[in-house]
Parts: sequence; C-alpha cells; structure tokens
Amino acid sequence: MSPPFIHEDFLLGTATARELYRTVARDLPVIDFHSHLSADALAEDRRFPDIAALWLDGDHYKWRAMRANGIDENLITGDATPHERFLAWARTVPHTLRNPLYHWTHLELARPFGIVDRLLGPDTAESIWQDANARLAKPEFTARGLARQFRVKVLCTTDDPADDLAAHRRLRDDASCPVAVYPTFRPDHVFRVEEVADWNSWVDKLGAAANVDIQSYDDLMSALERRADAFHELGCRLSDHGMAKPFADGVWHGVVRSGIKALRSGRELAPERLRIVQAALLYDLCSLYHARGWATQLHLGALRDVSTRLRKRLGRDSGGDTIGDFRPVRPLARLWDRLESAGRLGRMIVYNSNPADNEALAALIGAFQDGSVPGKMQHGAAWWFLDQRDGIRRHLDALSNMGLLPRFVGMVADSRSFLSWSRHDYFRRVLCDMLGADVEAGLLPRDEGLLRALVRGICHDNARDYLGLPSRAA
Amino acid sequence: MSPPFIHEDFLLGTATARELYRTVARDLPVIDFHSHLSADALAEDRRFPDIAALWLDGDHYKWRAMRANGIDENLITGDATPHERFLAWARTVPHTLRNPLYHWTHLELARPFGIVDRLLGPDTAESIWQDANARLAKPEFTARGLARQFRVKVLCTTDDPADDLAAHRRLRDDASCPVAVYPTFRPDHVFRVEEVADWNSWVDKLGAAANVDIQSYDDLMSALERRADAFHELGCRLSDHGMAKPFADGVWHGVVRSGIKALRSGRELAPERLRIVQAALLYDLCSLYHARGWATQLHLGALRDVSTRLRKRLGRDSGGDTIGDFRPVRPLARLWDRLESAGRLGRMIVYNSNPADNEALAALIGAFQDGSVPGKMQHGAAWWFLDQRDGIRRHLDALSNMGLLPRFVGMVADSRSFLSWSRHDYFRRVLCDMLGADVEAGLLPRDEGLLRALVRGICHDNARDYLGLPSRAA
Amino acid sequence: MSPPFIHEDFLLGTATARELYRTVARDLPVIDFHSHLSADALAEDRRFPDIAALWLDGDHYKWRAMRANGIDENLITGDATPHERFLAWARTVPHTLRNPLYHWTHLELARPFGIVDRLLGPDTAESIWQDANARLAKPEFTARGLARQFRVKVLCTTDDPADDLAAHRRLRDDASCPVAVYPTFRPDHVFRVEEVADWNSWVDKLGAAANVDIQSYDDLMSALERRADAFHELGCRLSDHGMAKPFADGVWHGVVRSGIKALRSGRELAPERLRIVQAALLYDLCSLYHARGWATQLHLGALRDVSTRLRKRLGRDSGGDTIGDFRPVRPLARLWDRLESAGRLGRMIVYNSNPADNEALAALIGAFQDGSVPGKMQHGAAWWFLDQRDGIRRHLDALSNMGLLPRFVGMVADSRSFLSWSRHDYFRRVLCDMLGADVEAGLLPRDEGLLRALVRGICHDNARDYLGLPSRAA
Repeated sequence: MSPPFIHEDFLLGTATARELYRTVARDLPVIDFHSHLSADALAEDRRFPDIAALWLDGDHYKWRAMRANGIDENLITGDATPHERFLAWARTVPHTLRNPLYHWTHLELARPFGIVDRLLGPDTAESIWQDANARLAKPEFTARGLARQFRVKVLCTTDDPADDLAAHRRLRDDASCPVAVYPTFRPDHVFRVEEVADWNSWVDKLGAAANVDIQSYDDLMSALERRADAFHELGCRLSDHGMAKPFADGVWHGVVRSGIKALRSGRELAPERLRIVQAALLYDLCSLYHARGWATQLHLGALRDVSTRLRKRLGRDSGGDTIGDFRPVRPLARLWDRLESAGRLGRMIVYNSNPADNEALAALIGAFQDGSVPGKMQHGAAWWFLDQRDGIRRHLDALSNMGLLPRFVGMVADSRSFLSWSRHDYFRRVLCDMLGADVEAGLLPRDEGLLRALVRGICHDNARDYLGLPSRAA
Repeated sequence: MSPPFIHEDFLLGTATARELYRTVARDLPVIDFHSHLSADALAEDRRFPDIAALWLDGDHYKWRAMRANGIDENLITGDATPHERFLAWARTVPHTLRNPLYHWTHLELARPFGIVDRLLGPDTAESIWQDANARLAKPEFTARGLARQFRVKVLCTTDDPADDLAAHRRLRDDASCPVAVYPTFRPDHVFRVEEVADWNSWVDKLGAAANVDIQSYDDLMSALERRADAFHELGCRLSDHGMAKPFADGVWHGVVRSGIKALRSGRELAPERLRIVQAALLYDLCSLYHARGWATQLHLGALRDVSTRLRKRLGRDSGGDTIGDFRPVRPLARLWDRLESAGRLGRMIVYNSNPADNEALAALIGAFQDGSVPGKMQHGAAWWFLDQRDGIRRHLDALSNMGLLPRFVGMVADSRSFLSWSRHDYFRRVLCDMLGADVEAGLLPRDEGLLRALVRGICHDNARDYLGLPSRAA
Repeated sequence: MSPPFIHEDFLLGTATARELYRTVARDLPVIDFHSHLSADALAEDRRFPDIAALWLDGDHYKWRAMRANGIDENLITGDATPHERFLAWARTVPHTLRNPLYHWTHLELARPFGIVDRLLGPDTAESIWQDANARLAKPEFTARGLARQFRVKVLCTTDDPADDLAAHRRLRDDASCPVAVYPTFRPDHVFRVEEVADWNSWVDKLGAAANVDIQSYDDLMSALERRADAFHELGCRLSDHGMAKPFADGVWHGVVRSGIKALRSGRELAPERLRIVQAALLYDLCSLYHARGWATQLHLGALRDVSTRLRKRLGRDSGGDTIGDFRPVRPLARLWDRLESAGRLGRMIVYNSNPADNEALAALIGAFQDGSVPGKMQHGAAWWFLDQRDGIRRHLDALSNMGLLPRFVGMVADSRSFLSWSRHDYFRRVLCDMLGADVEAGLLPRDEGLLRALVRGICHDNARDYLGLPSRAA
C-alpha cells in the first residue's frame, strides 16, 4: 500500500508551511470559543460507548451525506443499532471524496485513534469499528481525555439564558478538569415571537430562572439582565445570536411594550409589529452586552427547516437547514450604526453562511472599526458548510484583502462532537499552507519574525487578548 | 513552430491526471442527456455543407463574441455568405484568448477535423475553410458520423409537448442509427401566460397534438398528461424547465381554474393571478413527472431578452439573454417542500446560471436528499456561460464541498451544434486534471480503485443508473 | 538579510510572465483615464513636504487599516503631526500582511523612493521617514516629476460640472507639463435630490458656472449641456457616475418637470417621485454623452456613509463607505435597453464593487455589444476594495470567460495620491503573471505575437483607441 493518507505533512505543500506548522502552530493550546459541546459531558467526564456515539449521534453533516448516498433514514436517525449505523456510514465514506467529511473522518481516525493504515470503507469498516472502540475504553478517550489530547485549554459552550448552568457551576469548582469551560449567552428563543405558545412557555422558564415575574418588556429585559449577570459570574464574556439577517427595523418602544403585553396574554402580532419587537430586543441585548464588555457573535444567513418532513421527524434545526441568499449588508449596517451613534457598539464577531457575502461583510466590518480595540469588529471563521479547505481559504482571502488578517481571532470548532476539535488542527494546516505558498510565490516577505507572529496570533494569542476570558485551570 | 496547442495531454497537468484520462475517461461512451440538437438531423443523417453551417448558424456565444469584436451584424446574423461569415469569425478568434471559445474552437479543429498545426486567425482562415469543408464531405462527418466519432451512445433532445415527435418515431424504428435518441418534455410555453394571444395559439396546438379540446385547467392538464405519455412511449424519462426562479406562490386551485378560463377567452390576468397560475402549473407538472418516475431538470436564473433590439431582429431567446441576479433559494425550497410534504418530490437536477448561487444551491439540494435514490437531488453541470474551465471547476468544488461528488450525474453538452459534443471531452479533461492535482497535493488518497470508480461514475455510470433510460441501439 | 521583498520579478512566477513584463508591459506609457488626483497639483507642479502628506492625507484604505489596528482617531484624521501619523502608520504596516496595502506600501518605497532594503515597521519607521523625505525634496518628486517617473502620458481627473476647470485651462496652455490632463464630467450632485437645500445650492452654483438661470428641468439640462461643452473643449471625452444601482424607474417627463419646479422652490419630493426624477436625469445625461461621442463610466454598488459617526467627523464619502449587496443586473439592463431602443446607447464602462456580481455584469455587457466599436461595452477594472491581486484576477477571469479580454481597456489608478500610479505597474505584473501561468499550463498557445499584442492592448493601445482623447503633450 502507498504511504498513509494522513501524515505529519498533510495539507502542507511547501517547506515554509511545514516549518510554520511544526514550530509554531501545531502545539499551541486551543481556545475553542464557540462550540455546541455539552458542559455536562465534561463535568461528568463522559465515556463514549462506541465510535457511532461520537460520530453519528447528532452530526447533521454525516446524516446529509448518508441520505445523499441513498441510505435509508432508519440507518441514519432511526432505531438501527450503533453498529448498523456505523456500517452504513462506512459505506458512504468512499462517496465523500472531496467533501470535508473525507478529510475529517481520516484526520480523526489518525488522531486521537492512531489509525492511519486504512481508509474507511465497507471493507475496513469492521476492523475500524473494533480498533476504535477498543481505544474508546481507555481513559485518554473520555471527554476530558480528548480535551487533553487535543490541547484544549478553553472552551465556551452555547447556552440558553433560561438554562440553570448547573454543569458550569460544577466545572468552576472542579480543579481537576483540564479545560476552562465558560457559558455563552445565546437568547435565540426570545426572538421566536411568531410562535406565541412556545414563546410564552420559554419566557415562563426564563422568568423562573431569573426569579422575575415577566409581564412587560421591562420585566423581560430585567430577567435577561439577571441571567446575563449569572452567566458573567461563571466566566461568560461572549453572547451569540443566530438569525437569517439582522433585525433592523425602526425601534418604537411604545409598539414594543404593547407588543410584549399582547404576546404575554397569548395574542399573535402582525408581521410588522413582530419585526419591531425583534429589532428592539436585538438592539437592547447588544447594549446589554456592551455594558458588560462582552463580545457579540452573529451567525447570519441560515435558512432554517426548509424540509417539513425533516422538521417533523427530527425537530427544529436538525438537518433541513441550509444556506440562505438573504442580503445582510444594509440591515447589519443599520444595526451597527444605531449602536455606534448611541455609544453602545461593542466588539462584534460576524459569521456568514453564504460565501457570496464574504467580501461585502469583510468590507462592512472595516467601516465600523474605531481604533478602540485592535480588530474590534471581526469577520468570524468560515462557518458551517463553509468550514472546509476551500471555504476557509476564501474566508481568509476576503478577510486579508479587506481587513487585517494578523488581527483575526481565529478558528472555532462549532461542533457537537468531541472529535471535532481536530478541526483546529485542520485549520492550522490550511493557514500555514496558504502562508507558505505565499512566501514561495514572493507574495509575502521571507521574514521569520513576521510570519511566526502572524501564525501565533491567529492560532492563539489574538483570541486570548480579544476575548478577555477569566483565567482558570490550564 | 512550437508543438501543437491541442495535444493528447491538453489541460492534464499531472501524471495522475493523464493516467485517469487515458485509461478511464477518454474512451467512455457519452450519455448526452440534455441537448438542443435536432432529432431531424439524426433521423435524416444530415450532411453539413460547410463549417459555417456547423459553427455559426445558431451559436449565440460566437455571435456575442463577434459583436464584441466590432463585427457588423450583417456578418453575424445577416445575409452575408457562409464564407464571409467564417472569415469574420476567424478575425474574431484571436480576440477570444482566455474565453472558452478559444479552447472549443481549437478542440473542434483537432477533433473531428484533425487540424492541429494551425491556430485559427485571419492568416489561416482560408486554408482552414478549405480543409475543414473537404472533410465535411466525408461520411464520418454527417450527424451520425459525428456521433460515432464522439462516441455518443445516448442523446436526449429538448422538445415542446405540442411537438409531434415524428423524427423520434423514425429514429426509434431505425436500427442503423448509432445513437439512442429520446425526447425531453419541456413545457416552457405553458407558463407564458403574460402573452395571451401567443399562449392561446400554443394551447390550441397542444390540444390538437393531444386530441383534447382545451377549455379548462383540467383539460389543459389532461392534454399535458397525454403528451407526457406519448413522450414516455418514445423513451422520454426527463422533463426540463427554464425559468428565472421557481414559481412558488401559494396554489389556489379556484384562482387557477378561473384564471385558465379567462385566459382561454382571451383576457389578461393581473400579475398576482398569473403567478398563482404559474405556481399551480409547475407544482402539478412536477407531480405528473413524479408519477411517471421521471427526473426533472430546472434551468434557473436566465434573464431573457434584455435587448429589445436583438429580440426584434432575432426573435425570442436569441442573444440578448444573460445571467440574472435573482435569489432562487427560498422559492426553490418552497416548491420542493410542498412536493415532498405531498409525497411527490421526484429526482431533480437543478442548473444555475449565476455562479454566486453555486454554494447555496449545492447546500439546498442536500436538505432534500431522502435516502431513496443515491444522489436523488442533483446540482447539474456548469451551464451556459459557466460551461468553461473556471465555471466547471467552481461547480465541481461547490458540489464536492456541499455534497457527494461521486454521485454526480455529470456533463451535458446543452448545445445546438454537433461539434459541441467535444465539450464532454473538455469536461473529462478538466475533471481528471482537478483530481490529479488533488492527489499530487495529498488532498485525495492515492487509491487507484477509488479514483477510477469516481471518474467512471461521473463520466458515464451515474447518468446511466440515475436516469433509467430505456436501453436501445448502441 | 534575505533578498529584497520587492525586486524586478516581483509577482512574476514564470519565465513567460517575466519576458512579457520586461519586453512589453513594463515600459509602456500610462493612460490613467480615471483618477481623483488634483489638476491644481499638476498645474502648480506641487511639492510634497513629507511622505505623510502623500500617504496619509485622504487615503481611506490606510485610515481603515489603522482603525482596525487599534490606532486612535487623533493619529489618523486628527491634529497629530505628520511625523506622529507616519509612526502610527508604520506600527500598523506589519499588521497588513496579505492586505494590498502591504504590497502597495513596499512597491511605493521601491519606486519612486528606491528603498528596497527595509520593510516598513516600528523599527525602520524613523529611517524611512528620513530617507523618503530627503528624496521628496528633489525635483523628480514634484507632482510632474512623479508623473515622469511613472511614465504617465495621459490623466483624466474627476470633476463636478459646476467646477470652473481653471486648473485644466492652465494645463492646456502649459506645454511644459509632461502629462496631458483632461477633465471628466461627474454630475453625482445633481442626483442628490433627497437633500433639497444642499441640492439647490449646488444647482445655483451650476447655474452660475453655466450662466443659466435654472428654474425648470429644461434649464437644468441646458446648464448641464453648456458645462459638457466647456468640458469637451478642454479635452473631456468621459463622463462618470457613482450610484448604488442604476436609476431605472419609468421616465415620466410630466412628473420630472413638476418635480424639478418643486425642488427649486425648496419642497421635498416623495420617494417615488424622486426616483422618477433621478431616472430621467440619468437617461437624459446618457443621451447627452452619446450625442458628444463620450464614453460613460458607471461605478456601481457602493453603500455610502454607513457610519454616522464617521460621516459627522469627516464628511460625506469619507471612510464609512462600503460594498453593497444591491442587485444591479435588471436596472442596468433596463437603462441600457431604453437607450439602445432610442439609438442613444454610447460606449459604457461599468465598474462593480461587489465581486459576487462579476460574472453577471460581464455577461450583461455581452448582451449589449452591437458590433459598432470593438469592446463597446466594457467591464471596467477591478475597483476600490477589489483593486488587489485576487480582485484583479477574479475580474480578469470573469471578463475572459464571458467576454473578450483582448478588447479590455485596462487599468485605472482611481486614486487621490500621486504615488498610486504604481498600481499600474502592479496590475501589469498581475496580468503578465496570469498569462504566463496559463501558457505554462498549456491553457494559452505559446504564440509570442498573440501574447504580446494582448499585453500591449490591455496596458496601452486599447485605452488609446477606445477613448478617443485629443492628442496633446507627451
């Protein structure tokens, strides 16, 4: 057989790239500041029964690929056994050539599993199932063990304001955990004012968590503030919002107040009133984050739940989500301008889902830099469908051409799987490869100090300096 | 003189690319499942009087290039002689450097004409005119002769439901034709409800072909069904639609029924009623295709007839068409969701004209894969203005990153010229070149079996398996 | 230290590229037909006190980069000394790696300053300040001296119709100026009908310049015509417009006439009337240019003044401008179709700011080519944020794939700084590098005559032939 597909120099096409990777990028600790991992799993130092649990429970990418490969839904999200689901996935893998799943799958087999002598496919499925599961029984493969293997120093999870953060409290008081784990404040639910009953039951839950009886808009905001304070105390320094495009209608507080009252009494609002309420919530939440010195993340452009069939089967946001073709520039500009005019524009990290928006967003960010903080406005790492080699390169190119790459806060794994931390390694390889190719082509000066500082900043130092997370553990 | 511009390894930049091309891609038969070629020409085994007839009668690409080069319209679509028009084209060719026309022109001179020692230009025009025309007199250069030379095994033409398909019947009964020729059902005319008189005369023609007196919406649909059955009997397994973006307004059958009645009595409809009628037609036609097990092609995003001058001179869809910047994602998602919810979503192949939509469409397709058929939803080959090396590569990259490249049904020539079959060869070279470069860069494993299966699937097997066309001839 | 970053072969990756650059591109004179340079500076042959005056007074790119780097506004646009501002810029330069500013900065240090042994940064800032300023005291570094060094033969400035063009008259009569300087007619102010008071004071100024008492739409148009004639007499053959997207509403001259009357009496117009007035002005101005045989430039897609903070501090169009995500295709098609139908469509050069529009605009242009002039409709050079290596390459690729690259009229510096003429050299290197790479990959024939004609045309001959500027000076 030919040499292993995954090897030390995977993706590193030049001597400069290999040098930068080996001597700078490879061993830097990971600050994974946006993630959907479970704090519970780290609190209890979860063990994983088999590789299907790590790979196939909740990974929409793999589900989509399996459906596209003609695999029956029962073997994807049905009641098939983990072994059956793994075999169905193994049959699919050879059909993912050129998809990032092919790289990720084999990177994860290589690290942490140490399996580099086989490509996953129907013929190797059984042996890989055995070998991977055997390793999963070892202590280096618990949630914390994996964090150690991947050098993860800091992790920010994604949390609902109504959540009680019990796991985060346990983690704060547990000096044995190798990762500093912080919550992120993600109040998407408060914007779902179209579904009145569901919204009210969430507001009730929020009220209970905050110990506020929520009748009015002021009550709602004060409950959110109390929760923000509780998050802050547990180390939260980041908020996060997902939305098709920024809510940026005019804010009429009269309409907002009466709107919230109506909603709380179970009445639906007309679309234009809904939008005013949503715009007010977003504006006031951004102000709240600014007051606390938090950075705000905006994940823009997802078109959610396009398939009623999948939504009915799997619930909200589970496989029928896709890239929208909204036009985010003007609403985002309006939102930021209002905040800036009021002295309330904090640090912002905006992630886009449609790569056609890369350049316009990268340029917009530059219009709101104000000199107060290096890289105050950030074009966040290539996200979701774009988190693959081409997507990462296009994002880095747009960011480089329109802004300051050396101020970029870098990669986030944004995943539900503890194996996805390997994407930090993937990103670092892509970055070093790009820089190395630029140096060889004479596009960057062959100046070791500049290049090393650039890599170190993007892979670690910038996030550390920008986020201002409390220090703990390590 | 330097070595020929077109040679065996044209576009093939690596040893792996050359190996894949020579041992897999090059000699596979062609399944050209979307084309605007004339079935008549194959039925009668047409001879071509000169290369102007093959190159310049009806090729909008070349017309546009000639206009851009300052050539008078009389030498393009006027009454100049074929020789004069050819000379005008030859003057233009050196000004098409880096345009796909430059590659296509010289690929076609190389094969089938065997002319590789000259570049076309004013100085070589006369000798190429002589040499090419001399070859055209030979039997290998009739419509069927060209099909044999290009290894075309299957051809799907594009046909109006009102067409009587006489040529297809002749071809079905003619065992000497080397190509299996099938019609494709393309009912674009039925959607042109803005032009009432023209629409009515087409509906009359449809009624005559189907032997139905069309008064109502039910009559209209039953005429379309009868024609679909007649198409099916002649081997049709594909429909096709061209539209700016999918008609996806709400379907109100009351409005539709009264709308069709009004149209049939010659009255115009208000825009919002037109859109409801169009949405109903599209939904019901997709259901009809699904019931027959056909695949549906959607060609999205053309902005038609922007130049009134060209439309007046040349008629509809003839040179003033261009790439639109519509936003197709939400209407397409709505259409597919409704069909899926009703259990009527069949196989779909969607082609986009604006490359800014590549990623969003490639991702949307993944949301409607349902495991019933490998690659059920397809992102069709780079189309129209995008059918060039960069466009092909960007399409394959988007498809690879968002979906399963190994399930792709591959290239279609989509042309009016019998020489354009050379684009299959062009596509195969581009594909092998990409894969070879990926292997050399370590992005793909050096696994011969995987790579050969990938090439064979995209160039031939996938289309064969996916389309389910009847077997015949070959 | 390693070899200089900027050297003779900078950006030129192949032997063919180097050959084309050295023997064709490098020494061709520059026709800089779109620029924001000051005619006054050339008329008086201005001297520059220090490099801060040339680099930092008015360069929005650098201001944005400094803000993004955390530099206080006082050191950017405040009352800090030139030396302090230069040091702040020098601190920022190492953080611009991969941004075009890094290339431009070092290209400009290399030529005209001859500084190639140092990279600009905090450690070299003081020595570069000294060396550059010492050179600025020499006669080769006045406005005219720089023009000579950069081989600029023709310069078109950008001028308001209300401007008296005094500097242009002086330049016309000054045989010692090495550059032929012509005005460009840019009447953006006339479209700003939303701000009535400001608009009226501009109309008054226009009336005074044209010696017309402007009461009506006819008065307004006749003042503009008179100014166009005055511009023409001074060698103007180009107009220019900046707009988000083309004004292409229906033109109702009744509404237009009453609208202008209302505006002149100080009344505001409703938005839909404003748009009709703007559409009429654009249509009638394009007709006016056509009648004079001028080419029209359209700069599309800027979203202006998104930051109220910056607008208040710095005034209109000064740093808060960014890339919009408008959809220009249909309005532009409508405008051109109306003009073409009336026989009034002149030569057009359209520049887009959002690269997602590249292909659609490049294709649209092809639909309006009419054979009357080679390359009549032009896709103008990569502009503004896109004027960097990637942006230039993507523009050239789109233009090549959709149209005729060999008919392209080429680069413009579009700058406020006399050092930015180095961008012509930058563009020529990028162009030669692309062509060389294509030749080495076998994508272009190795035909010296074709390649040399292509480079010569794009870098010089096409602009000369297309623009029809009067001959003068040299």
